[in-house]
Amino acid sequence: MKILLVNPNRTQAVTDAVLAAGWTAARPGTSLVAVTGRSGPLVIGSRAENAIAQREVLELAAAHGADADAIVLGVSLDTALWACRELFTVPVIGMTEAGLLMAATVGTRIGVLTLGRAMVPLYEELAAAYGMAARVAAVDAVDIMPAQALAQPHAVREALCAAIARMRERRGVDVVLLAGAALASMAADAQAASPVPVLDGVACAVALAQARVDLRLPPSTLGADAPLSGRDVTGVSPALAARFKDSSRSSS
Amino acid sequence: MKILLVNPNRTQAVTDAVLAAGWTAARPGTSLVAVTGRSGPLVIGSRAENAIAQREVLELAAAHGADADAIVLGVSLDTALWACRELFTVPVIGMTEAGLLMAATVGTRIGVLTLGRAMVPLYEELAAAYGMAARVAAVDAVDIMPAQALAQPHAVREALCAAIARMRERRGVDVVLLAGAALASMAADAQAASPVPVLDGVACAVALAQARVDLRLPPSTLGADAPLSGRDVTGVSPALAARFKDSSRSSS
Amino acid sequence: MKILLVNPNRTQAVTDAVLAAGWTAARPGTSLVAVTGRSGPLVIGSRAENAIAQREVLELAAAHGADADAIVLGVSLDTALWACRELFTVPVIGMTEAGLLMAATVGTRIGVLTLGRAMVPLYEELAAAYGMAARVAAVDAVDIMPAQALAQPHAVREALCAAIARMRERRGVDVVLLAGAALASMAADAQAASPVPVLDGVACAVALAQARVDLRLPPSTLGADAPLSGRDVTGVSPALAARFKDSSRSSS
Amino acid sequence: MKILLVNPNRTQAVTDAVLAAGWTAARPGTSLVAVTGRSGPLVIGSRAENAIAQREVLELAAAHGADADAIVLGVSLDTALWACRELFTVPVIGMTEAGLLMAATVGTRIGVLTLGRAMVPLYEELAAAYGMAARVAAVDAVDIMPAQALAQPHAVREALCAAIARMRERRGVDVVLLAGAALASMAADAQAASPVPVLDGVACAVALAQARVDLRLPPSTLGADAPLSGRDVTGVSPALAARFKDSSRSSS
Amino acid sequence: MKILLVNPNRTQAVTDAVLAAGWTAARPGTSLVAVTGRSGPLVIGSRAENAIAQREVLELAAAHGADADAIVLGVSLDTALWACRELFTVPVIGMTEAGLLMAATVGTRIGVLTLGRAMVPLYEELAAAYGMAARVAAVDAVDIMPAQALAQPHAVREALCAAIARMRERRGVDVVLLAGAALASMAADAQAASPVPVLDGVACAVALAQARVDLRLPPSTLGADAPLSGRDVTGVSPALAARFKDSSRSSS
Amino acid sequence: MKILLVNPNRTQAVTDAVLAAGWTAARPGTSLVAVTGRSGPLVIGSRAENAIAQREVLELAAAHGADADAIVLGVSLDTALWACRELFTVPVIGMTEAGLLMAATVGTRIGVLTLGRAMVPLYEELAAAYGMAARVAAVDAVDIMPAQALAQPHAVREALCAAIARMRERRGVDVVLLAGAALASMAADAQAASPVPVLDGVACAVALAQARVDLRLPPSTLGADAPLSGRDVTGVSPALAARFKDSSRSSS
Repeated sequence: MKILLVNPNRTQAVTDAVLAAGWTAARPGTSLVAVTGRSGPLVIGSRAENAIAQREVLELAAAHGADADAIVLGVSLDTALWACRELFTVPVIGMTEAGLLMAATVGTRIGVLTLGRAMVPLYEELAAAYGMAARVAAVDAVDIMPAQALAQPHAVREALCAAIARMRERRGVDVVLLAGAALASMAADAQAASPVPVLDGVACAVALAQARVDLRLPPSTLGADAPLSGRDVTGVSPALAARFKDSSRSSS
Repeated sequence: MKILLVNPNRTQAVTDAVLAAGWTAARPGTSLVAVTGRSGPLVIGSRAENAIAQREVLELAAAHGADADAIVLGVSLDTALWACRELFTVPVIGMTEAGLLMAATVGTRIGVLTLGRAMVPLYEELAAAYGMAARVAAVDAVDIMPAQALAQPHAVREALCAAIARMRERRGVDVVLLAGAALASMAADAQAASPVPVLDGVACAVALAQARVDLRLPPSTLGADAPLSGRDVTGVSPALAARFKDSSRSSS
Repeated sequence: MKILLVNPNRTQAVTDAVLAAGWTAARPGTSLVAVTGRSGPLVIGSRAENAIAQREVLELAAAHGADADAIVLGVSLDTALWACRELFTVPVIGMTEAGLLMAATVGTRIGVLTLGRAMVPLYEELAAAYGMAARVAAVDAVDIMPAQALAQPHAVREALCAAIARMRERRGVDVVLLAGAALASMAADAQAASPVPVLDGVACAVALAQARVDLRLPPSTLGADAPLSGRDVTGVSPALAARFKDSSRSSS
Repeated sequence: MKILLVNPNRTQAVTDAVLAAGWTAARPGTSLVAVTGRSGPLVIGSRAENAIAQREVLELAAAHGADADAIVLGVSLDTALWACRELFTVPVIGMTEAGLLMAATVGTRIGVLTLGRAMVPLYEELAAAYGMAARVAAVDAVDIMPAQALAQPHAVREALCAAIARMRERRGVDVVLLAGAALASMAADAQAASPVPVLDGVACAVALAQARVDLRLPPSTLGADAPLSGRDVTGVSPALAARFKDSSRSSS
Repeated sequence: MKILLVNPNRTQAVTDAVLAAGWTAARPGTSLVAVTGRSGPLVIGSRAENAIAQREVLELAAAHGADADAIVLGVSLDTALWACRELFTVPVIGMTEAGLLMAATVGTRIGVLTLGRAMVPLYEELAAAYGMAARVAAVDAVDIMPAQALAQPHAVREALCAAIARMRERRGVDVVLLAGAALASMAADAQAASPVPVLDGVACAVALAQARVDLRLPPSTLGADAPLSGRDVTGVSPALAARFKDSSRSSS
Repeated sequence: MKILLVNPNRTQAVTDAVLAAGWTAARPGTSLVAVTGRSGPLVIGSRAENAIAQREVLELAAAHGADADAIVLGVSLDTALWACRELFTVPVIGMTEAGLLMAATVGTRIGVLTLGRAMVPLYEELAAAYGMAARVAAVDAVDIMPAQALAQPHAVREALCAAIARMRERRGVDVVLLAGAALASMAADAQAASPVPVLDGVACAVALAQARVDLRLPPSTLGADAPLSGRDVTGVSPALAARFKDSSRSSS
């Protein structure tokens, strides 16, 4: 099967990390294609940049998702996740959503670890929006910026391990999810020194997307992921506008 | 003071209704200016259209908000509310946020009434995101579409009154908030036949925006409404890009 | 418009502070009148004193509220708030209620700061009773008693600033509400050294009361703020007994 | 042991019903004394009357509780419960609190049944304040007023049974608590036709008060039920003022 | 890979249905083995039977799980799920847990549908225990007993479809999970007439187990799924006793 | 009356401690009988051991409970509590359930203190399952194992007092419940140095069981504690099998 990984940020290095992380969970016969934002934020680091990125997620999915069997959001705030589910009939999985759901099968107390203190409340709000707040025992951050993380991956490792130990000691977390596309593919490094499993959201999302394809669910005709029709939206690409007109008729 | 009302939908009639509703709460000396989306959805009726509209909210605010003393979101999903708070140092108030907060001073059990059953879960999720779920005793809808509501306002009145009576009888609501920009300025009609107060979100937002200006709070330097700086965002207008570079230096 | 500020405590200095704080948010044309408890607790510092003060709130409002356009409770536990709403048809606003609602428009994570550790659980319970617990990230206290706070206001400032920094560092609060009538009018002092906005509950309540008047809501005929009639209550003043007999017929 | 039952309402018939209900759970050697409000509401039927009754609860307990081994609040809103716990070192138990706690040992889904629809939200708020909301599956009411209930007890029975059946059918309640002092001693009647246990709050409170005495807990020196000292409260009886001065030195 | 399906009930027909449902999600190369309880309840229909079945789940897993790559609990109360996670280092997935997690990627409002009204609260409690209560909009039941369901599968279909329509209409569910091992493999039938996706818990569990294997997580050394060692348990099989002595050394 | 205390662990010393604690709350005329597990875990210290112990709880109760007026679970995870309620028509009370309910009448913020950090999440989950999470302000542990606690009771005292002081200081707990059968009868020791009441779960359970007997509630015919009938369960004792066949006909 083909899975499209969507990174709405403009940073190719993040896309590369997301793709590398995705391959760690791809089964034989799965092909992964990753695309990068052409405009919008360099890296999402605020609510405002996340707002801007929403349209780019939909545009990238519309431009590249026509023949995909599933779409994975390679952006750790799962930007426009439910919007995608209205516009695409194939499974759409968010990397942090998938990480939280997978983590829920590993431990009762989940720790979420991200880059930059300012992002902590955004992940707390995201977990709450998923109705998973009761399972998230801690959200913590290492004070390293994405760019720095990409430049000095090994320097990040120590900070991650220290934060994991802190969450384990203070909050008794049973499993840790790395939240931040820039952290993609760093789980193995962090795992080496961690007493609890460390999950990579992209890997979880690819694994979960494959599982969703295994289930062969029919499309909804009503409800939160039901296709749209007759919506008149301008200022977007013809491919995206066509999905608003009738997302069920689209080839994917 | 000057308050900018932002309607990211492309429907001028909604903007007109929003502006009319706003005037009902404007105090002497307050001037209201309302702007309409230039591209994006005709009327937001899905998560995907709400995702698309986020950027337009920021663009309209950046284009027209420079000299505003406060910004009111005239879109009932409060699209991009927290994003605006990062980009603007003046008070930014969402119409549904304001309606829920004002309603909380009227009754312990709030009812929210909107257009179209499909929107019900979106308002439930919005109330939960505001941490107000415990106060919202019911979210109900009249099965009338925004366009129809604008065309036949009096036809809507009966449906609203029936729904209000239903929420009162079944869920014991003490106060009702009309949620839906297309319902703006219909509160008075609905009130005439309602045993409990009926609130208009735009009027509440204008009143609350004036109150926020009365408080003369200093800008944050940290936290959820702290100004952004140094964010590199492309594909947006120069005015909006400048706010991402340094929202505290902007004139408003 | 005329707003009555009710302080059921017997301490005139608290009333003076409440009135001074109220003026900071009064708009031109608003007159404020503040009244002080004649019997009951010197300063409310326990659940038992709060129980005793409930009747005095109602008596003061009945004695002085006849021509008020709104009533503000200048007592930080919002003593008898919903009771007043049954007995008065004008808007009644509690200072801590208003502070929490206004703070919700500033930040996603609210910090509440009061005087005396023993009061912390009472404010946590009050926030929960308002359905706002999800928004309150921290309730903390400075170990200074009200009398001391009034006597040495400047000595209080350092303690407040240290506590604000602590709540910011440990709990990531975006905005701080000073809860405690004895702290009224100390917000400006605390603000000077705070990275996040510091709200005064009385100022918020006056601003919100003015906003409620701007909305010109009709009285309820059912529900939590519906007028009472035919209630037979003895041992209270004739004015208050009359309100229990028919609160809708009362002049205010 | 001696247990004081406090009914702050002015209706002797309610006190008689409370006392009768209490005796059904009194063990050999337990004596019950019930007292009635001398001023305040005839029967609490609103938030405002409940506010007024708070002081009378404290006055009655101060006047008659000196030699009691425990105090039971024979008022179904548990008026001034935590206030009493600060002023008295003996166990103080509320009738609805006790009913909810006992019901929690009978079924996972508790139904609360009261008199008058207007009271439903007050009991929902009370259950939430006790942190028991997750256990209360339904709060329902029979539209009969307390006076009528006392006058025509048998007429009430059918209404209660119909409501119990409705709560069982629609909400799957496993156990029902009758909330309303005027319903005291009607549990046996209602039980006769109920498939699930029907609890009387006063009986539960007497049983729980006896259990608390069995435990012989020492008084707190800190926390929610720690004695008060040095509180200066005027406008109350000397006995009550003395408790505010030092509740630990009082004979009970 | 090999996945062991554990049905602790003594009914072979349920095991057959569970196995058939599992195959619908098995990917090429996955082998499924299903085992049936040798003693305990015929079909779990009460809390007491669920308590008895806990040990049989562990015994069956210990007896047959040695060479399994993952274990799926084919019992809809996910009996002994976390206990298994302590005793086995391979992924262990519960059928209802998996159904809820997969459903969370399909819709925001999940409906759970089971057999027999008496089971409704057990599933509500299970969803709450998983921290998923906020996502479960309705738990409903068809009043058909497992034995009857197995005997007349087609008769069940109509009842299921009616219940799905009811949950859709009244609670706005976006996706439905069939909860009840006896319903395994009936999802396709129900799906045919459903406007929203209908999930089979066993299929979801097999798909999720395969996904967990794809992730190749290391075993925990601390936390909720960390292996046990040195626990002295008698009255169980040597294989199970050995796992209590040291579950990390066991071959699976 | 006769109360049966059930300790499913195989450690007689725990049973002795449970019985000693029980006597501290037994009233004149109450006889206590305590029984010990014959097989299963030595001491429950994991979820897996708790799963194994469930059947032993039911077997012990069936073997010894025939003439009991109430059953108390002398195991601090309240193992199989609701299962027992289906199988026995007399009151069944769990020691931690009782401790939490009694503590709720003492303070608003309950602290739970157990043995071994690994048990902390289990008690948090238990409190949540009882719907009491909002009342539990802290769950903490002393890092002493049950065997050690039994061997060196006085050594445990210091650790308990330090932990109580820590919970008081950091979380403001008003009352502390000792959770852990091995801690039974240590409450008095811990109380001597504690500023807040320290509760023993077994004593609370005996007191509450006596209170439940005082209430003389009729058996349920529907709901969570309704008797079972016609359940076919094998691999259990004839006495227990008979209860599954018809628990209402059983002598107790």
